[in-house]
Amino acid sequence: MDSDLGLIQVFTGDGKGKTTAALGQAMRAAGHGFKVYIVQFMKGWPSYGELKTVGQHPNITIKQFGRPDFVDHDSPEPVDVRMAQEALEHSRDIVMSAEYDLVILDEVNVALEWKLIGIDDLLALMEEKPAQVELILTGRYAHPEVIDRADQVTEMREIKHPYSRGLLGRRGIDY
Amino acid sequence: MDSDLGLIQVFTGDGKGKTTAALGQAMRAAGHGFKVYIVQFMKGWPSYGELKTVGQHPNITIKQFGRPDFVDHDSPEPVDVRMAQEALEHSRDIVMSAEYDLVILDEVNVALEWKLIGIDDLLALMEEKPAQVELILTGRYAHPEVIDRADQVTEMREIKHPYSRGLLGRRGIDY
Repeated sequence: MDSDLGLIQVFTGDGKGKTTAALGQAMRAAGHGFKVYIVQFMKGWPSYGELKTVGQHPNITIKQFGRPDFVDHDSPEPVDVRMAQEALEHSRDIVMSAEYDLVILDEVNVALEWKLIGIDDLLALMEEKPAQVELILTGRYAHPEVIDRADQVTEMREIKHPYSRGLLGRRGIDY
Repeated sequence: MDSDLGLIQVFTGDGKGKTTAALGQAMRAAGHGFKVYIVQFMKGWPSYGELKTVGQHPNITIKQFGRPDFVDHDSPEPVDVRMAQEALEHSRDIVMSAEYDLVILDEVNVALEWKLIGIDDLLALMEEKPAQVELILTGRYAHPEVIDRADQVTEMREIKHPYSRGLLGRRGIDY
Protein backbone atom coordinates (compact mmCIF):
# COMPACT_ATOMS: atom_id res chain seq x y z
CA MET A 1 0.00 0.00 0.00
CA ASP A 2 0.99 3.63 0.04
CA SER A 3 2.41 3.67 3.52
CA ASP A 4 3.77 1.47 6.25
CA LEU A 5 0.42 1.55 7.93
CA GLY A 6 -1.12 -1.71 6.89
CA LEU A 7 -4.00 -2.33 9.24
CA ILE A 8 -5.75 -5.42 10.51
CA GLN A 9 -9.42 -5.45 9.61
CA VAL A 10 -12.06 -7.90 10.81
CA PHE A 11 -15.43 -8.62 9.20
CA THR A 12 -17.59 -10.67 11.56
CA GLY A 13 -21.19 -11.16 12.68
CA ASP A 14 -24.12 -13.33 11.64
CA GLY A 15 -25.16 -11.26 8.63
CA LYS A 16 -24.34 -11.42 4.96
CA GLY A 17 -21.43 -9.75 3.27
CA LYS A 18 -18.36 -10.69 5.28
CA THR A 19 -16.57 -12.61 2.55
CA THR A 20 -18.05 -10.46 -0.18
CA ALA A 21 -16.88 -7.27 1.53
CA ALA A 22 -13.40 -8.74 1.77
CA LEU A 23 -13.52 -9.72 -1.90
CA GLY A 24 -14.67 -6.21 -2.69
CA GLN A 25 -11.64 -4.88 -0.86
CA ALA A 26 -9.50 -7.26 -2.88
CA MET A 27 -10.94 -5.88 -6.12
CA ARG A 28 -10.49 -2.34 -4.94
CA ALA A 29 -6.85 -2.89 -4.05
CA ALA A 30 -6.21 -4.87 -7.24
CA GLY A 31 -7.82 -2.11 -9.24
CA HIS A 32 -5.17 0.24 -7.89
CA GLY A 33 -2.40 -2.13 -8.89
CA PHE A 34 -1.76 -3.66 -5.47
CA LYS A 35 -1.09 -7.36 -5.05
CA VAL A 36 -3.65 -9.41 -3.17
CA TYR A 37 -3.57 -12.92 -1.76
CA ILE A 38 -6.68 -14.66 -0.47
CA VAL A 39 -6.50 -17.77 1.70
CA GLN A 40 -9.82 -19.48 2.17
CA PHE A 41 -10.18 -21.65 5.25
CA MET A 42 -12.66 -24.54 5.26
CA LYS A 43 -13.70 -23.99 1.68
CA GLY A 44 -13.04 -26.35 -1.17
CA TRP A 45 -16.03 -25.70 -3.32
CA PRO A 46 -14.71 -24.46 -6.65
CA SER A 47 -18.03 -23.22 -8.00
CA TYR A 48 -18.23 -20.16 -5.77
CA GLY A 49 -19.32 -17.60 -8.35
CA GLU A 50 -17.30 -14.71 -7.00
CA LEU A 51 -14.11 -16.71 -7.20
CA LYS A 52 -14.52 -17.22 -10.89
CA THR A 53 -14.51 -13.48 -11.32
CA VAL A 54 -12.01 -12.48 -8.65
CA GLY A 55 -9.55 -15.19 -9.55
CA GLN A 56 -9.33 -13.89 -13.10
CA HIS A 57 -7.71 -10.66 -11.97
CA PRO A 58 -3.97 -10.80 -12.58
CA ASN A 59 -3.23 -9.08 -9.24
CA ILE A 60 -5.28 -11.50 -7.15
CA THR A 61 -4.27 -15.00 -6.09
CA ILE A 62 -6.69 -17.32 -4.30
CA LYS A 63 -5.83 -20.54 -2.53
CA GLN A 64 -8.43 -22.73 -0.89
CA PHE A 65 -7.82 -25.12 1.96
CA GLY A 66 -10.80 -27.31 2.58
CA ARG A 67 -13.10 -30.00 1.35
CA PRO A 68 -16.32 -29.61 -0.59
CA ASP A 69 -18.13 -31.14 2.39
CA PHE A 70 -19.10 -28.99 5.31
CA VAL A 71 -17.02 -29.36 8.43
CA ASP A 72 -18.87 -30.91 11.36
CA HIS A 73 -18.55 -28.41 14.19
CA ASP A 74 -18.91 -31.01 16.94
CA SER A 75 -16.50 -33.55 15.53
CA PRO A 76 -14.32 -32.22 12.72
CA GLU A 77 -12.44 -34.80 10.73
CA PRO A 78 -8.66 -34.95 11.19
CA VAL A 79 -8.34 -33.84 7.56
CA ASP A 80 -10.22 -30.64 8.41
CA VAL A 81 -7.82 -29.84 11.23
CA ARG A 82 -4.84 -30.60 9.04
CA MET A 83 -6.06 -28.45 6.16
CA ALA A 84 -6.89 -25.52 8.43
CA GLN A 85 -3.44 -25.68 9.98
CA GLU A 86 -1.86 -25.86 6.55
CA ALA A 87 -3.94 -22.83 5.61
CA LEU A 88 -2.60 -20.89 8.59
CA GLU A 89 0.98 -21.91 7.87
CA HIS A 90 0.58 -20.90 4.26
CA SER A 91 -0.97 -17.60 5.36
CA ARG A 92 2.02 -16.97 7.58
CA ASP A 93 4.42 -17.60 4.69
CA ILE A 94 2.48 -15.25 2.45
CA VAL A 95 2.19 -12.48 5.04
CA MET A 96 5.80 -12.68 6.13
CA SER A 97 7.06 -12.67 2.54
CA ALA A 98 5.76 -9.09 2.30
CA GLU A 99 5.22 -9.73 -1.40
CA TYR A 100 1.52 -8.97 -1.13
CA ASP A 101 -0.03 -5.66 -0.13
CA LEU A 102 -3.26 -7.20 1.10
CA VAL A 103 -3.75 -10.67 2.55
CA ILE A 104 -7.24 -11.96 3.30
CA LEU A 105 -7.77 -14.90 5.65
CA ASP A 106 -11.31 -15.81 4.71
CA GLU A 107 -13.33 -17.69 7.38
CA VAL A 108 -10.33 -17.85 9.69
CA ASN A 109 -12.55 -16.77 12.59
CA VAL A 110 -14.70 -19.85 12.10
CA ALA A 111 -11.69 -22.13 11.87
CA LEU A 112 -10.57 -20.73 15.23
CA GLU A 113 -14.00 -20.98 16.86
CA TRP A 114 -14.18 -24.59 15.75
CA LYS A 115 -10.72 -25.24 17.20
CA LEU A 116 -9.22 -26.27 13.88
CA ILE A 117 -6.42 -23.79 14.59
CA GLY A 118 -5.09 -22.28 17.80
CA ILE A 119 -5.60 -18.72 19.00
CA ASP A 120 -1.92 -18.25 19.83
CA ASP A 121 -0.83 -19.02 16.28
CA LEU A 122 -3.28 -16.51 14.85
CA LEU A 123 -2.38 -13.81 17.36
CA ALA A 124 1.30 -14.35 16.60
CA LEU A 125 0.63 -13.82 12.91
CA MET A 126 -1.27 -10.61 13.66
CA GLU A 127 1.51 -9.43 15.94
CA GLU A 128 4.42 -10.22 13.64
CA LYS A 129 3.09 -9.18 10.26
CA PRO A 130 5.22 -6.70 8.30
CA ALA A 131 3.94 -3.18 8.96
CA GLN A 132 3.02 -2.44 5.35
CA VAL A 133 0.86 -5.52 4.86
CA GLU A 134 -2.90 -5.03 5.20
CA LEU A 135 -4.59 -8.05 6.78
CA ILE A 136 -8.29 -8.88 6.66
CA LEU A 137 -9.82 -11.64 8.78
CA THR A 138 -13.36 -12.76 8.07
CA GLY A 139 -15.96 -15.05 9.56
CA ARG A 140 -18.52 -14.98 12.31
CA TYR A 141 -17.50 -15.70 15.91
CA ALA A 142 -14.47 -13.40 15.88
CA HIS A 143 -12.49 -14.14 19.04
CA PRO A 144 -12.39 -11.32 21.62
CA GLU A 145 -8.60 -11.30 21.54
CA VAL A 146 -8.66 -11.01 17.75
CA ILE A 147 -11.04 -8.08 18.01
CA ASP A 148 -8.83 -6.56 20.67
CA ARG A 149 -5.75 -6.67 18.44
CA ALA A 150 -7.49 -5.58 15.25
CA ASP A 151 -7.45 -1.98 14.10
CA GLN A 152 -10.87 -2.00 12.49
CA VAL A 153 -13.80 -4.28 13.20
CA THR A 154 -17.09 -4.37 11.34
CA GLU A 155 -19.99 -6.53 12.43
CA MET A 156 -22.45 -7.64 9.78
CA ARG A 157 -25.73 -7.96 11.67
CA GLU A 158 -28.70 -9.82 10.30
CA ILE A 159 -31.67 -7.51 10.81
CA LYS A 160 -34.11 -9.37 8.62
CA HIS A 161 -33.83 -12.64 6.75
CA PRO A 162 -36.17 -14.30 4.26
CA TYR A 163 -36.17 -17.67 6.02
CA SER A 164 -39.91 -17.67 5.85
CA ARG A 165 -39.77 -17.75 2.09
CA GLY A 166 -37.69 -20.90 2.16
CA LEU A 167 -34.95 -19.33 0.11
CA LEU A 168 -31.65 -20.72 1.17
CA GLY A 169 -28.81 -21.42 -1.15
CA ARG A 170 -29.88 -19.69 -4.33
CA ARG A 171 -27.26 -20.08 -7.05
CA GLY A 172 -25.72 -16.76 -7.99
CA ILE A 173 -26.89 -15.11 -4.77
CA ASP A 174 -25.92 -17.27 -1.83
CA TYR A 175 -23.06 -19.13 -3.45
CA MET B 1 -31.91 -15.93 -11.53
CA ASP B 2 -33.06 -19.50 -11.23
CA SER B 3 -36.57 -18.75 -10.07
CA ASP B 4 -39.19 -16.07 -9.94
CA LEU B 5 -38.16 -15.29 -6.42
CA GLY B 6 -35.95 -12.28 -6.84
CA LEU B 7 -35.61 -10.68 -3.43
CA ILE B 8 -34.96 -7.18 -2.23
CA GLN B 9 -31.83 -6.95 -0.13
CA VAL B 10 -30.59 -3.97 1.86
CA PHE B 11 -27.05 -3.32 3.10
CA THR B 12 -27.05 -0.44 5.58
CA GLY B 13 -25.37 0.78 8.77
CA ASP B 14 -22.36 2.92 9.64
CA GLY B 15 -19.74 0.24 9.09
CA LYS B 16 -17.61 -0.73 6.15
CA GLY B 17 -18.55 -3.14 3.43
CA LYS B 18 -21.98 -2.08 2.19
CA THR B 19 -20.95 -1.22 -1.35
CA THR B 20 -18.24 -3.84 -1.40
CA ALA B 21 -20.68 -6.54 -0.28
CA ALA B 22 -23.01 -5.51 -3.08
CA LEU B 23 -20.15 -5.59 -5.56
CA GLY B 24 -19.25 -9.02 -4.25
CA GLN B 25 -22.79 -10.13 -4.94
CA ALA B 26 -22.45 -8.69 -8.44
CA MET B 27 -19.32 -10.74 -9.03
CA ARG B 28 -20.93 -13.84 -7.63
CA ALA B 29 -23.96 -13.50 -9.87
CA ALA B 30 -21.85 -12.60 -12.90
CA GLY B 31 -19.63 -15.60 -12.21
CA HIS B 32 -22.71 -17.77 -12.63
CA GLY B 33 -23.55 -16.13 -15.93
CA PHE B 34 -26.27 -13.80 -14.68
CA LYS B 35 -26.57 -10.24 -15.94
CA VAL B 36 -25.94 -7.45 -13.46
CA TYR B 37 -26.58 -3.71 -13.61
CA ILE B 38 -25.19 -1.32 -11.01
CA VAL B 39 -26.51 2.23 -10.65
CA GLN B 40 -24.38 4.40 -8.41
CA PHE B 41 -26.10 7.37 -6.82
CA MET B 42 -24.09 10.43 -5.83
CA LYS B 43 -20.84 9.02 -7.16
CA GLY B 44 -18.92 10.41 -10.06
CA TRP B 45 -15.43 9.52 -9.05
CA PRO B 46 -14.06 7.29 -11.78
CA SER B 47 -10.99 6.14 -9.86
CA TYR B 48 -12.88 3.85 -7.49
CA GLY B 49 -10.58 0.85 -7.61
CA GLU B 50 -13.28 -1.78 -7.42
CA LEU B 51 -15.05 -0.35 -10.43
CA LYS B 52 -12.02 -0.84 -12.58
CA THR B 53 -12.18 -4.52 -11.82
CA VAL B 54 -15.93 -5.04 -11.67
CA GLY B 55 -16.58 -3.03 -14.80
CA GLN B 56 -14.33 -5.27 -16.80
CA HIS B 57 -16.66 -8.22 -16.38
CA PRO B 58 -18.73 -8.72 -19.53
CA ASN B 59 -21.87 -9.52 -17.48
CA ILE B 60 -21.69 -6.37 -15.35
CA THR B 61 -22.71 -2.87 -16.39
CA ILE B 62 -22.06 0.14 -14.15
CA LYS B 63 -23.53 3.60 -14.56
CA GLN B 64 -22.69 6.45 -12.24
CA PHE B 65 -24.87 9.46 -11.58
CA GLY B 66 -23.02 12.10 -9.64
CA ARG B 67 -20.24 14.60 -9.49
CA PRO B 68 -16.72 14.09 -8.25
CA ASP B 69 -17.44 16.60 -5.49
CA PHE B 70 -19.20 15.50 -2.35
CA VAL B 71 -22.82 16.46 -2.00
CA ASP B 72 -23.50 18.98 0.76
CA HIS B 73 -26.07 17.34 3.02
CA ASP B 74 -27.49 20.62 4.27
CA SER B 75 -27.80 22.36 0.94
CA PRO B 76 -27.39 20.05 -2.04
CA GLU B 77 -26.90 21.71 -5.39
CA PRO B 78 -29.76 21.51 -7.90
CA VAL B 79 -27.50 19.41 -10.10
CA ASP B 80 -27.23 16.82 -7.31
CA VAL B 81 -31.01 16.56 -7.04
CA ARG B 82 -31.34 16.30 -10.80
CA MET B 83 -28.69 13.61 -11.13
CA ALA B 84 -30.13 11.54 -8.28
CA GLN B 85 -33.58 11.70 -9.85
CA GLU B 86 -32.12 10.72 -13.21
CA ALA B 87 -30.43 7.82 -11.46
CA LEU B 88 -33.73 6.65 -10.01
CA GLU B 89 -35.52 6.98 -13.34
CA HIS B 90 -32.75 5.05 -15.05
CA SER B 91 -32.91 2.42 -12.30
CA ARG B 92 -36.61 2.06 -12.92
CA ASP B 93 -36.07 1.57 -16.65
CA ILE B 94 -33.43 -1.06 -16.00
CA VAL B 95 -35.44 -2.94 -13.39
CA MET B 96 -38.67 -2.88 -15.40
CA SER B 97 -36.90 -4.06 -18.57
CA ALA B 98 -36.31 -7.38 -16.78
CA GLU B 99 -33.18 -7.74 -18.87
CA TYR B 100 -30.97 -7.93 -15.81
CA ASP B 101 -31.07 -10.62 -13.13
CA LEU B 102 -29.57 -8.41 -10.43
CA VAL B 103 -29.86 -4.64 -10.14
CA ILE B 104 -27.88 -2.78 -7.49
CA LEU B 105 -28.86 0.75 -6.44
CA ASP B 106 -25.67 1.80 -4.71
CA GLU B 107 -26.01 4.57 -2.09
CA VAL B 108 -29.68 5.01 -2.86
CA ASN B 109 -30.43 5.06 0.87
CA VAL B 110 -28.23 8.12 1.27
CA ALA B 111 -29.82 9.87 -1.69
CA LEU B 112 -33.18 9.32 0.00
CA GLU B 113 -32.01 10.43 3.44
CA TRP B 114 -30.64 13.61 1.89
CA LYS B 115 -33.95 14.21 0.10
CA LEU B 116 -32.41 14.06 -3.38
CA ILE B 117 -35.14 11.56 -4.26
CA GLY B 118 -38.56 10.85 -2.80
CA ILE B 119 -39.55 7.86 -0.69
CA ASP B 120 -42.69 7.20 -2.71
CA ASP B 121 -40.75 6.80 -5.94
CA LEU B 122 -38.36 4.32 -4.37
CA LEU B 123 -41.14 2.33 -2.70
CA ALA B 124 -43.02 2.18 -6.00
CA LEU B 125 -39.95 0.72 -7.69
CA MET B 126 -39.62 -1.90 -4.94
CA GLU B 127 -43.29 -2.72 -5.21
CA GLU B 128 -43.50 -2.97 -8.98
CA LYS B 129 -40.27 -4.73 -9.86
CA PRO B 130 -40.60 -7.89 -11.94
CA ALA B 131 -40.66 -10.91 -9.62
CA GLN B 132 -37.53 -12.50 -11.02
CA VAL B 133 -35.30 -9.45 -10.60
CA GLU B 134 -33.09 -9.37 -7.53
CA LEU B 135 -32.69 -5.85 -6.15
CA ILE B 136 -30.00 -4.64 -3.76
CA LEU B 137 -30.16 -1.24 -2.08
CA THR B 138 -27.11 0.07 -0.26
CA GLY B 139 -26.14 2.98 1.93
CA ARG B 140 -26.42 4.00 5.54
CA TYR B 141 -29.64 5.58 6.85
CA ALA B 142 -31.96 2.99 5.27
CA HIS B 143 -35.49 4.35 5.61
CA PRO B 144 -37.79 2.35 7.95
CA GLU B 145 -40.28 1.84 5.13
CA VAL B 146 -37.53 0.53 2.89
CA ILE B 147 -36.48 -1.90 5.61
CA ASP B 148 -40.10 -2.88 6.08
CA ARG B 149 -40.55 -3.77 2.41
CA ALA B 150 -37.18 -5.47 1.98
CA ASP B 151 -36.83 -9.24 2.24
CA GLN B 152 -33.36 -9.26 3.68
CA VAL B 153 -31.59 -6.53 5.63
CA THR B 154 -28.02 -6.56 6.84
CA GLU B 155 -26.58 -3.84 9.02
CA MET B 156 -22.85 -3.22 8.85
CA ARG B 157 -21.96 -1.98 12.32
CA GLU B 158 -18.75 -0.23 13.11
CA ILE B 159 -17.38 -1.91 16.22
CA LYS B 160 -13.92 -0.42 16.11
CA HIS B 161 -12.37 2.15 13.81
CA PRO B 162 -8.79 3.32 13.48
CA TYR B 163 -9.64 7.02 13.64
CA SER B 164 -7.00 7.47 16.24
CA ARG B 165 -4.35 6.47 13.74
CA GLY B 166 -5.41 9.21 11.38
CA LEU B 167 -5.96 6.78 8.55
CA LEU B 168 -8.81 7.96 6.45
CA GLY B 169 -8.95 7.67 2.73
CA ARG B 170 -6.14 5.29 2.00
CA ARG B 171 -5.88 4.57 -1.72
CA GLY B 172 -6.64 0.95 -2.50
CA ILE B 173 -8.39 0.42 0.83
CA ASP B 174 -10.93 3.17 1.38
CA TYR B 175 -11.46 4.13 -2.25
